[in-house]
Amino acid sequence: KNLFKPLPKVANNPENPVTQVKVKLGKMLYYDTRLSRSNIISCNSCHNLARYGVDNTPTSVGHKWAIGPRNAPTVYNAALHIAQFWDGRAKDVEEQALGPILNPIEMGMPTKERVVKVVKSIPEYVELFKKAFPNDSDPVKFENIGKAIGAFERTLMTPSRFDEFLNGNTNALTKKEKRGLKTFISVGCAGCHNGPAIGGTMFMKFGQVEEYWKETYPYVLKESPAIKVDFGRFGVTKNKADMFVFKVPSLRNIAETYPYFHDGSVWKLEDAVRIMAKTQLGKDLTDQQVEDIVAFLKSLTGKLPEDALKTPVLPPSTDKTPKPEF
Amino acid sequence: KNLFKPLPKVANNPENPVTQVKVKLGKMLYYDTRLSRSNIISCNSCHNLARYGVDNTPTSVGHKWAIGPRNAPTVYNAALHIAQFWDGRAKDVEEQALGPILNPIEMGMPTKERVVKVVKSIPEYVELFKKAFPNDSDPVKFENIGKAIGAFERTLMTPSRFDEFLNGNTNALTKKEKRGLKTFISVGCAGCHNGPAIGGTMFMKFGQVEEYWKETYPYVLKESPAIKVDFGRFGVTKNKADMFVFKVPSLRNIAETYPYFHDGSVWKLEDAVRIMAKTQLGKDLTDQQVEDIVAFLKSLTGKLPEDALKTPVLPPSTDKTPKPEF
Ligand code: HEC
Ligand code: HEC
Ligand code: HEC
Ligand code: HEC
Ligand SMILES: [Ca+2]
Ligand SMILES: [Ca+2]
Ligand SMILES: [Ca+2]
Ligand SMILES: [Mg+2]
Repeated sequence: KNLFKPLPKVANNPENPVTQVKVKLGKMLYYDTRLSRSNIISCNSCHNLARYGVDNTPTSVGHKWAIGPRNAPTVYNAALHIAQFWDGRAKDVEEQALGPILNPIEMGMPTKERVVKVVKSIPEYVELFKKAFPNDSDPVKFENIGKAIGAFERTLMTPSRFDEFLNGNTNALTKKEKRGLKTFISVGCAGCHNGPAIGGTMFMKFGQVEEYWKETYPYVLKESPAIKVDFGRFGVTKNKADMFVFKVPSLRNIAETYPYFHDGSVWKLEDAVRIMAKTQLGKDLTDQQVEDIVAFLKSLTGKLPEDALKTPVLPPSTDKTPKPEF
Repeated sequence: KNLFKPLPKVANNPENPVTQVKVKLGKMLYYDTRLSRSNIISCNSCHNLARYGVDNTPTSVGHKWAIGPRNAPTVYNAALHIAQFWDGRAKDVEEQALGPILNPIEMGMPTKERVVKVVKSIPEYVELFKKAFPNDSDPVKFENIGKAIGAFERTLMTPSRFDEFLNGNTNALTKKEKRGLKTFISVGCAGCHNGPAIGGTMFMKFGQVEEYWKETYPYVLKESPAIKVDFGRFGVTKNKADMFVFKVPSLRNIAETYPYFHDGSVWKLEDAVRIMAKTQLGKDLTDQQVEDIVAFLKSLTGKLPEDALKTPVLPPSTDKTPKPEF
């Protein structure tokens, strides 16, 4: 099928070549809680690599227990997307990585300078930045933190049985999964969820046929009767046509990255699939169709790269390292 | 020297034999944030195995950003101690592990039943409990969570060059480190810090010669002029003789487990050593003595067990799993 593509080994970026030492450094930074003001939050806190790159909560908890407005998407395969965040406001993983560090409700660092000061205070990091950015006269700079973490994320690919199938092994999927794939295409899902990440290739309105909250309202509770309506990409472009427009998310590992949607409102994959058919295609799926699609989607659960799960031993702080602030 | 002993491979407990499957299960539970009410805090949040088993903050942050009263000691080699916690209120790592899960300012679980419900809702865990506790008619029970985590902790030994030295290789330590070791013994440190963990063998008053806060007061800040005075083991026994008595901590990996003391008040190892000499022995060490002792203490930084650092991929929740509560 031309709609999909097997995952590459690495999601390359000519502007930020993926080298071994950069990936090593990026992985250390990814796991290092000292990139946060409190010294207790790392990228891995919200994008737990042992839980398929997510925190499995509706919306994430950050600095001082601030509760954010959106669900944390997985970092696995994210480097392949046309842009980063639900609203696409960062162009790539390199740019994206710098956001949460300074975000007051995520890692809460007050300034770029403070972040650089932390890294500069740790000699092992200074050495690694020099090696990772050999042609840079000032290697330990804020942008290079993003490049190192970005390079690491570019290695976070999770091939699954579906890739074997795409590579020609028709037995890699069960009968039911193949039926699900057919339904996924014939019903119209693949019109939006396509490419190597089965998503991440375009922006589309959530609620093509009717406002999305008309379908998610059953998830409103007596105890919390108000829901926030998220304007999506409109917040970035201020273009009315972008109201309620979101990046079409990747469906790789989707069975593991519950809860679903930008607000994490829906916990069951079956429900998410039904809501999609209704809001995006105006269709009511049969139970059999839902079951088959879900079976197909489960075949997208991939193998997590072993090296990413080996937590690096992190070098100690020094007297120069700014102290944690809660 | 009879004062010390090389580390064992495993800190055995006849009441809770260390088996491979129990360790595997215990490691998963150790890393699993679902043992907390919010689903974002695991044992590893405060005892980061990639940072020598600590969080490197003065006192820990728990559920709803509650800030606790004590510094988190390392889990590495802890199973060897005569008792657990600064005040020794838990008899072993098996008993200890159950404390933080229900502690409202740590993992914040409301009841044992809720914890068991979480684990029972995940079929992969049920299977592993059956295998880890084959003779138990009710394997998935609260106590067995402690036994599994405890068994994992019993494998967290970190042998260092000092063990090679104790095993007869006199070249394993440098000249300076050996001088430091001699000073450590002759000055009187080893009277309290001894055994295989270089500590953890007894309870002693912090402030033998004078109240400990008379030495730590320089760390009191204009912005926070009041310090909490911790009564230590008195809180457990209500025996006046136990006022300000604490378990003598292990000095294994001490250079990595800053900040120091039960309140995490002191960041520099040199300062901690000087304070110890003063409060516990009534001595003022020379700069040379401090330097040598610190050199010796650094030789106690060990090799972290590789397997512990391989984060296990955690099984997904199911419809029956209680949802996170913030
Ligand atoms: C406190 C929680 C939290 C922390 C810490 C955090 N993130 Fe995120 N991350 C989120 C949330 C929530 C979003 C979605 C925000 C949005 O779309 O507006 C997100 C989005 C992303 C995305 C976009 C993925 C996509 O499909 O668009 C990437 C990549 C990412 N984060 C990587 C990182 C990295 C790297 C770090 C550390 C430097 C980090 N995150 C720290 C919560 C967090
Ligand atoms: C017209 C475009 C479009 C079509 C058609 C479409 N989707 Fe989506 N899908 C999206 C967008 C946009 C989102 C993000 C919605 C949001 O903001 O939460 C999404 C989200 C999802 C999610 C949740 C992803 C996550 O990480 O939370 C699933 C699952 C999903 N789609 C499956 C399907 C299935 C199955 C079909 C077909 C029945 C389908 N989609 C059809 C655009 C589309
Ligand atoms: C929110 C932070 C936090 C969490 C989560 C946490 N701990 Fe602790 N841990 C501490 C603190 C603080 C202490 C010291 C408390 C005291 O002595 O009163 C401690 C003490 C210990 C000790 C005693 C070590 C010694 O030398 O006496 C062990 C062992 C331990 N924790 C293991 C665990 C395990 C296992 C878990 C998960 C089930 C866990 N901890 C969860 C902060 C935490
Ligand atoms: C009489 C017993 C005793 C003697 C002698 C003693 N210590 Fe201690 N040591 C303790 C106790 C008890 C503590 C825990 C204090 C507290 O509550 O924070 C401690 C804590 C420490 C700590 C901080 C450990 C940590 O994890 O925060 C260091 C370092 C230390 N001792 C080194 C030394 C050195 C070096 C000497 C000799 C100069 C020495 N001690 C002598 C009992 C003793
Ligand atoms: Ca999700
Ligand atoms: Ca400490
Ligand atoms: Ca002094
Ligand atoms: Mg017991």
